[in-house]
Amino acid sequence: MTAKDHQKSVSKNTSLSVIEPSETYKKAKLDVWTMFNIASAKSKAVNLGQGFMNFPVEDFIKKAGADSIVLDSTAQYPSPKGSQRLLKALSKRYSEALGREIDPNTEIMVAAGANEDGRNETVVMEPAFDQYTPNVAIANGKTVYVPMRVDPSLSPETKVISSNDWKIDMAELEAAITPKTKVLILNTPHNPTGKVFSLEELVQIADLAKKYNLLVVSDEVYENLYYDDTEHISIASIDGMFERTLVIGSMGKMFCVTGWRIGWIIGPERLVSPCLAAHKRIVFVASSPLQEACAISFEQANENGYFERQRKEYIERRKKLMDAFDSVGLPYSIPHGSYFLLVNANKVKIPDSFEIPDYVAERGKGFILSYFFTVEIGIGCIPPAEFYSEANVSLADDYVRFAFCKTDDIFEETARRLKKITNYY
Amino acid sequence: MTAKDHQKSVSKNTSLSVIEPSETYKKAKLDVWTMFNIASAKSKAVNLGQGFMNFPVEDFIKKAGADSIVLDSTAQYPSPKGSQRLLKALSKRYSEALGREIDPNTEIMVAAGANEDGRNETVVMEPAFDQYTPNVAIANGKTVYVPMRVDPSLSPETKVISSNDWKIDMAELEAAITPKTKVLILNTPHNPTGKVFSLEELVQIADLAKKYNLLVVSDEVYENLYYDDTEHISIASIDGMFERTLVIGSMGKMFCVTGWRIGWIIGPERLVSPCLAAHKRIVFVASSPLQEACAISFEQANENGYFERQRKEYIERRKKLMDAFDSVGLPYSIPHGSYFLLVNANKVKIPDSFEIPDYVAERGKGFILSYFFTVEIGIGCIPPAEFYSEANVSLADDYVRFAFCKTDDIFEETARRLKKITNYY
Repeated sequence: MTAKDHQKSVSKNTSLSVIEPSETYKKAKLDVWTMFNIASAKSKAVNLGQGFMNFPVEDFIKKAGADSIVLDSTAQYPSPKGSQRLLKALSKRYSEALGREIDPNTEIMVAAGANEDGRNETVVMEPAFDQYTPNVAIANGKTVYVPMRVDPSLSPETKVISSNDWKIDMAELEAAITPKTKVLILNTPHNPTGKVFSLEELVQIADLAKKYNLLVVSDEVYENLYYDDTEHISIASIDGMFERTLVIGSMGKMFCVTGWRIGWIIGPERLVSPCLAAHKRIVFVASSPLQEACAISFEQANENGYFERQRKEYIERRKKLMDAFDSVGLPYSIPHGSYFLLVNANKVKIPDSFEIPDYVAERGKGFILSYFFTVEIGIGCIPPAEFYSEANVSLADDYVRFAFCKTDDIFEETARRLKKITNYY
Repeated sequence: MTAKDHQKSVSKNTSLSVIEPSETYKKAKLDVWTMFNIASAKSKAVNLGQGFMNFPVEDFIKKAGADSIVLDSTAQYPSPKGSQRLLKALSKRYSEALGREIDPNTEIMVAAGANEDGRNETVVMEPAFDQYTPNVAIANGKTVYVPMRVDPSLSPETKVISSNDWKIDMAELEAAITPKTKVLILNTPHNPTGKVFSLEELVQIADLAKKYNLLVVSDEVYENLYYDDTEHISIASIDGMFERTLVIGSMGKMFCVTGWRIGWIIGPERLVSPCLAAHKRIVFVASSPLQEACAISFEQANENGYFERQRKEYIERRKKLMDAFDSVGLPYSIPHGSYFLLVNANKVKIPDSFEIPDYVAERGKGFILSYFFTVEIGIGCIPPAEFYSEANVSLADDYVRFAFCKTDDIFEETARRLKKITNYY
């Protein structure tokens, strides 16, 4: 029997009962991205859900990509650590940002996107980007949550507030730390609130990290996106903190190419080196030509004023989205960082006749509200409820997240469609 | 205190005792790639160690890359499953190869390279590519090893044999399967032996998988690299096997761009879908422009005869490397697949005066032999001992792996340097 004959006899029987997926997999809920991307597509919603940009990439970045991909020198495996040119560019940038010399050979690791990450506890401030918890769970850890809170006297259901009104109660944070706590996850500028942590707040968090000997994982992927009178500060730049901090950055967010998948980790060698060991086993190396392109983009961005231009453009985009919500009287937190607008839709009353699929209904009020905006109003969004643990998810009941990394036509269509929401107050 | 003032006061104290890496990390040995890349670089060896190509990428592939990277449509997140165009190209290719319609929406997943993978047992045939065991360990599984063996009457220490003389004893394989065994890992064409499993062998393995209800992970990243009278057959094309098989493929191996990091998994929806769930959490999505480039490369390769041309070129490269070893009388296994030459260096006597670092010496004879070739002879290589479990590592005592995905100048320099080895018989 030859291989060709053999292939003709292949069975079409798919009823075999073979190996079952793990219990963890079977219990996993449908992830919010899949759920709302499907809902957006079905209802032809304008998509302000996922935080990808729909404006064109700047030409110098595209050119960096095209120049890099035709090089034979980038066609083969780079070092798992990252390509030399990118490590050098990152060393330059973070040496300035952190106020200390960052060694490109030992204190930086390039990852395939900024998603990559014992039986220990990790403290996370909520709302928290939904990738943290499963990443801790994969590593067999337990996550403990401390919610950010808005002072009720600010009346966020009726009044526009500032993203910096979202506060961590430092006593509550300290109380959440147990002898098993090893890691604290921080995110500034913050997704989804837009909060940019102040130096005072960071110093207080740093003091706790030092007091209880914690490792801080500082997700700073929106590090260039801070507005108004705020400034992004890395907790790693605080006295005594570099030694216990891993800073996470992302090319996708920085150069508006979320599909290119290059990220990095900065920290002391003894913390970076175990990350590198895990990275080598899980994805081995990040794409070489895109690392080169990232290095070139960094080199040129500093000369052509890209980061300042980008901030200015995002401030204009933010204004257009805030204007749309102002015109229908829905309050929000003014985001001083990142590119998300957190809207408080407490006053929206969902009619009984609105049909809600079970897989949405079972996730609670926050999910239902976002589903209503997506399907009935035609504006795709994401429920921040996904960014909360079960214990605190009711804090997200009134909130809907809209991304403003989008073009003017999207904002205009959003404003047009949004008028309909006033029928439901 | 402003952020800028603050940065000036940053501490240079690095003596803090902070969080310790996990025990697993601390016990991990230096990986073979790092060890031998360092040794090769230090001794200015010609590098036949790691299997990356040093010849130029074909122009149509580079052009596919350059055309894809400037598209705004590829700049943002693709679907975690993979880009539509690549899923379609893979569906076409594997529908033909497996003799059944592969659904691009449910039976394929694109990964960031082909490295990505419970308390169950996995059976692996040795020698086995060194990434399998840590990947199983990360998933909390136990690995059971069954070695491939060469009949001693073939005298592999003195005679050239065929890669197909490396055989699995099917009774031994069956005996290794316990009630806890859930997964069997297969690799064909095989690294490092070059063996291309025959239909008869695959049918026997398939029978065991069906009898004991095992999932087969079939690493077929060298699927286009089969020579002489062999033909690559996927075990997934065997009657009743598609339902229980995950086929792993790699763009890097197929289009000679190991640095681009695109791979894929093909299988029935119920097996692919848990892989996709893990992938979404660990790396989220693979690089979008490179997926597009891979799709275009597939589309054009079928028309321009790339795969046949590639096989022909590899046969020429193989001949040059075999000639070099023939001329010094060192026997090997003629590789009928992949791009590695497994040399039996039993007759090489390492002089007592040769200095061996402890981290090499403690890994045994196979490591010492490869270290000798790298440092003393100046030809970088990899010890296949790394591909064996501790129980069977002595089977690799005589073997050294050389890659032939290299240019003529490298083969010439290899032949020149190799003459020195005859001083050590």
